[in-house]
Formats: sequence, C-alpha cells, structure tokens
Amino acid sequence: MSLIVQKYGGSSVANAEKIKNVARRVGKAHDQGNRVVVVVSAMGDTTDDLLELAARITAEPDERELDVLLSTGEIVSTTLLAMALHSMGYKATSLSGGQAGIWTDETHSKARILAVEAHRITQELEAGNIVVVAGFQGVTRNMDVTTLGRGGSDTTAVALAAALKADKCEIYTDVDGVYTADPRIVPGARCLREIGYEEMLELATWGAKVMHPRAVELGEVYNIPILVACSFNENPGTLIHGGASVEVRNKVRGIAHDTDVAKITIVGIPDRPGIAAALFEPLAKAAISVDTIVQNAGLNNVTDITFTVTKSDLPKAMKIIEPVARSVGGSKCLSDSNLGKVSIVGTGMQNSPGYAGRMFKALYEAGINIQMISTSEIRITCIVAQDKVKDAVRALHQAFELEKE
Amino acid sequence: MSLIVQKYGGSSVANAEKIKNVARRVGKAHDQGNRVVVVVSAMGDTTDDLLELAARITAEPDERELDVLLSTGEIVSTTLLAMALHSMGYKATSLSGGQAGIWTDETHSKARILAVEAHRITQELEAGNIVVVAGFQGVTRNMDVTTLGRGGSDTTAVALAAALKADKCEIYTDVDGVYTADPRIVPGARCLREIGYEEMLELATWGAKVMHPRAVELGEVYNIPILVACSFNENPGTLIHGGASVEVRNKVRGIAHDTDVAKITIVGIPDRPGIAAALFEPLAKAAISVDTIVQNAGLNNVTDITFTVTKSDLPKAMKIIEPVARSVGGSKCLSDSNLGKVSIVGTGMQNSPGYAGRMFKALYEAGINIQMISTSEIRITCIVAQDKVKDAVRALHQAFELEKE
Repeated sequence: MSLIVQKYGGSSVANAEKIKNVARRVGKAHDQGNRVVVVVSAMGDTTDDLLELAARITAEPDERELDVLLSTGEIVSTTLLAMALHSMGYKATSLSGGQAGIWTDETHSKARILAVEAHRITQELEAGNIVVVAGFQGVTRNMDVTTLGRGGSDTTAVALAAALKADKCEIYTDVDGVYTADPRIVPGARCLREIGYEEMLELATWGAKVMHPRAVELGEVYNIPILVACSFNENPGTLIHGGASVEVRNKVRGIAHDTDVAKITIVGIPDRPGIAAALFEPLAKAAISVDTIVQNAGLNNVTDITFTVTKSDLPKAMKIIEPVARSVGGSKCLSDSNLGKVSIVGTGMQNSPGYAGRMFKALYEAGINIQMISTSEIRITCIVAQDKVKDAVRALHQAFELEKE
Repeated sequence: MSLIVQKYGGSSVANAEKIKNVARRVGKAHDQGNRVVVVVSAMGDTTDDLLELAARITAEPDERELDVLLSTGEIVSTTLLAMALHSMGYKATSLSGGQAGIWTDETHSKARILAVEAHRITQELEAGNIVVVAGFQGVTRNMDVTTLGRGGSDTTAVALAAALKADKCEIYTDVDGVYTADPRIVPGARCLREIGYEEMLELATWGAKVMHPRAVELGEVYNIPILVACSFNENPGTLIHGGASVEVRNKVRGIAHDTDVAKITIVGIPDRPGIAAALFEPLAKAAISVDTIVQNAGLNNVTDITFTVTKSDLPKAMKIIEPVARSVGGSKCLSDSNLGKVSIVGTGMQNSPGYAGRMFKALYEAGINIQMISTSEIRITCIVAQDKVKDAVRALHQAFELEKE
C-alpha cells in the first residue's frame, strides 16, 4: 500500500464545486489502494479577503495576529474538503498545521519548519481516514500559530511527505505542469514530463511560478519525487526527481523569466577589499534580497558595482545604499526599474561554452540589448529591458529548439 | 488591581468600526487599572455564512468538521480585536479556546466544559497583555476543536471568570440589559438594575433571550457577578448576582415569553404507573427536550397527557410518540403548533398564592384563554394561543405594575 501526499492550491478549492472535484480525485487515489494525506490552501481569494479585513483595522497589523488570522483560511478549506469526502462515503478527518505536528520557529509570516511530528496523521491513517491537513501553517513550541510565507502549502506537502516517508508527493495546481517556457508567452512551449531538482530549483528561483523553490529544495534534500500536475484534467504532469539530470545532461530544459527587476548602480567607488561587504551588509539587515551582482573592471582603482533587487524593494534599497555609497567614496547612485530577466536552465551548461554563445547570439538577432549577465553551473541569466522580456523568451525558446521533444 | 472578563457578542464586533469601538471600551477598562480578558463572538453573520458554505458541500456536515469550521469565525474576531488594540497602543494577544485552556468533552456542536486551565492567560496578563479569547469553542484532550452550542460565548466568559477568580464578568450585547419584558412588545418595559441568579435563570429559560441560561447557571455555581450591558452606550446595565433576591422578595421581576411552542396530547391512556416513563424515555433518547407536562385527572382509569416541545421538534416527536402511545393503549395523539407561553418570574411566589390569581385574572380580563399551566418556586407559566402572546405580556406587565421602579 502506497502513501501519497497530495496538495491542492487555492484555485483548485476556490468554491464548493471545485472542492467536490478535489474530493473525487482524492477519493480515487484512495480507491486505488493508497493511503492519502491531502494538503490544501485557502479557497481562492480568501487570503486576500482576510488581509483586507486586517487593513480595515490597522495599516500595520501585528505579525503574530496576522498569522492567526490568515491560518483560518486553510482551516476552512480542510473542513469543507473533509465534509465533501464524507458525503462521498469516505472516512476523512481535517487537521490544522499544529494538529498535524508541523512545528516551526517563531518567525511569524515566514516561519521555518523545525520538525514534523506526524504521529497524529499516522494514527488517523491507521484508522482508515483520509487526512486533510491545512497548508501554509505550523505552530511554535508555545502553541502559537505561524504561517510559512510564500510557497507555504507546497512546503507543507513536501515536508509531510518527507516525515511520513511517502512514496510520492503530488502538487496539483491550475496548469498542466512545468513548461519549457511560460505558454502564455510562447505558444509552442512544451510541458516537460520530468525534470531534475537542481534544474527545477533554478527555474523556480529565476521566475517559473509553478512551484516555490523552497519546496523543491526540501524535495531534493529528502529525495521525494514531486509530481506537478493540473487538478482539472488527467494530463500526466511533470515529475521532479533526482534521476532526471543524468539522462538529459547538456540540454537546455527551460526558459525562466521575471519582470520584477530593478537595478542600482554605484558609480566610482574605490576598488579595495571590504567595499562589497560594507555595501551589502546593511541591505541584508533590512531583509532586502539582492539578486545578480556585477562589478565592472576597475580603472585607476575606481570601480562601479551594479546589482538587482525587486521593484518593491527599490525605494528602500536606495534609501539605505545612498549614504553607505557616499561613506565609502562613491560618486553617485543610479537606479533603473524598467528591467526584466530571462534565464536558460539545463544541467551541464558550464562544461559546454556553446550555450552562452547561442544565448547571446539569439538575443542579439532579436535586437535585444543585454545589460547584465550572471551564471550558475546550470543557468545563464541575462538582464534586459522589461519590454524586451517576452521577445527574449520567444527567441530563446526557438534558438534552443524547446518545442521539440 | 481588579481582573475583569468582558464578553462582546457578534453584533458588537460586526465590522471594523464596531471592533474599534470595542477596542476603545476594552482599552478604557485597562486604563482604569484593571487586568482585562475579553471574550469575543464571530463577527455579525459570519457563523451563518460558514454554515452556508458547509451546506453547499453537503446537507449533513460531519459535526467534528463543522465545529472546526465554525470555530474559525471567533478566531478571526480575536485577531482583529487584538490588532485594533495594538493600533491604539495597547499590548494584546489573541488566544483560541484551546490556547486559553478551555477543555471540553467530545460532544461536538454542544460540548460541555470539563476544565479551564488558564495558565497561558495568567502568563499573558502578567506580561501586561490584554488577552482576547475566542468564545464558543474549546478543545478535547485529543486536541480536537469543539464548539459549546447555544450561548457558548457567554459560557466561555463566565467559565473564564470563575477559573481566573475574576472580580467581575461583563456581558456586552446590543440591548441595555435585562428588561421587565421585551421592550419591543411593552413600550413601558423597564431595564432592571439588578436581578438574582435564580430569577434570571427562569427568565432566560422561559424566553428572555438576553443571556443563555447555561451561563447564568455557571455564574450562580461560582458566584460570579455578571453585568449585562450595551456595547454601544454607557448605560449602567443589569447586574445579575446572588444578593438581589433577598431584597426584592415577593415581587414579580419580569415577564418572559416564547412563541416557539407546540403541544402534543395523548388521549385515553391507562392511568397506571410506568406510562409516563414509557412515553418520555424515547423522546429523551432522541434528544427532544420536553417542556411543560400536564396530566389530566383520570376518569375510569383512563387519562390524557399533554406536553410541549419546540415547533421544530414537533414532527419528529409525533413520529416517535404515536407508536409508543398506541403500544400503551392510547386512543389517539393530537398536536397543535400555534402556541406560545408567557411566564411571570419573581422570588417567593410560592408562598404568596395571590400571584397566580392576579395572573389568571389579568389574562381573563384581556380575553386570553389559558391552555396549560406550570409553576416553579419562582415562576408561573401559562400556555396560550400564539397570537395572544403579545397581549398577554402587555396585560401582565400592567397587572403587576412593572413599569414602576
């Protein structure tokens, strides 16, 4: 008998009909002889509605209280799915994150899971129940409710799969799986049947929204095969697993893109040790995530440093970086928020220099100027003008022949 | 420093403005040097909305799941009130019923409180926090959420007041307090400044909706003075306490009424021991609450038994009682659902036979026929036609001069 953890996102449980649809799918997995744990998100816009409720009370809601408030959204979903399962003749029980044994640290709004003590789940499974767990939430050792931040429900699912030593973790969403590029931009984009953890991690980190990198990372650490598939059809989806990379080495697997990019350039700073630390430490302290960093070659011991942040972080980042830049002798700070990034991801790129050349040539031929470049072992990212991002994705998808199997 | 438990009902926290109003009142109590624990209900129609959500999934929701679903309503209120208090500069923390240490049995949808272990509340109070507790809910020893059924939030407040040895329990609602009769029926009805537990219990049990009898009973057992007052003004309200009865003995305190009354008459059953038990045991097993019971004097060893139930229970009760009645030799069962009851309540009535006479005379003079009579030490109840209930309340209010102080 297999143990499967399934996760259904907000759009899959947006209303009563969709919840019944999920119940049928869950019931089918149970009928096939599996023990099933289901993780659910809040229904459709519930989280936004709750945030709006809080906003009507205060502009700066306390994070502990906000976590408790938001956690009710997932609880509601769990009870309705359990009721739907009952109405179809299945035994089912709902559990909150805390009841499911998801212990976290006390970092409200973006708590990290410290441990999963799944004995209650095991007990319910042994009693023949389908177990429906509220995603996105946990509880501190003081029994205070926390939420896990972005990608939280995916993280709950993978963490439970790891703790329960599940045979499979299935993430159901409103798209068919992981595509070679965003199909809204590239009509010929292809749904991948499988992908390696590392590649998925790069795709997710660099713009593919289908799964949060955090959950992918957890899957990799515990070697949990993760199926990403659509809750509204029976298409096979994409299997994220550890074995894929070997087979498909030296091939671009997908194109990620992101239009939420702004850059800051600090001009004319002394080219000596310690400068980078002086600049980036204050940003890290303010929890501003810095992405690509490029330092131009120094002339006369003076250099320029450019880095990217999200657009929403730009004003705060400028406010922090300007006095710091002055204090280390920089001549000025420039910013640009009309940027995007486009990345090609595939295992083994670093050993095949041809990929970078093909990427730059494809962008050149599409008339797209590259502003910054950054690379990892399995990824090459170019920062381009925001209004060129879609063209860049299409050009790269064609250049690497991703529409072909 | 006093410890006060305040409770605010659903209409007092129906929207953001009203929640801020409650926060101001709570803050004021805190400013006056009190330690404050606040119990809140779900906002306005939230509970109905959640019930509707469940109804869209299934006509017969599982009671465990329904309890978890409904409990989210009060959780939402607690977080919003805590946020409102923060925005006004107060330290506050929200707690679910379980976090507040309200342990119940496992009777979902109408759980009884087994114990209150209030150490978390005490700890939060000692840290200088105003503690906001979700009403209407508790948790079983297995950490499953339960709800307390009708009057649940009032019960939570009084139970916490008892456990914390609070100096006062204040129940805030949308009316000024306990009236001599329903002011919508009797324009001259007067808000009582104080009333004894027993009298309040009779009034609440026999139709006054302002407080649930269960909470009054708990207040009496632990001798907690309960103030019932309005959350929208500064009127003094009604103090329910143990000392009141002595002072105001031998006086009608108020008129209760209820139009949710149906009666069943079983005609021609043998007048011998055991018949009543045979009739009422099956009803009790079906959780049908039987109210007034009257047995007519038997002739030729044959008697009629009449009793009342709520209108919604009538069809079920008839279905149960008809075969039972036949099996003990009854000739037929009659029912009437167009009934109401009106009661006068006041300590010491039993020793003053004049009250019954005045009551019956007042109803007679108003042209109202009495169908059944039942009495307790401090109450006389008459069952009358439903369309005569309002007239009866007005006639009795006048006859006992309740508009006078």
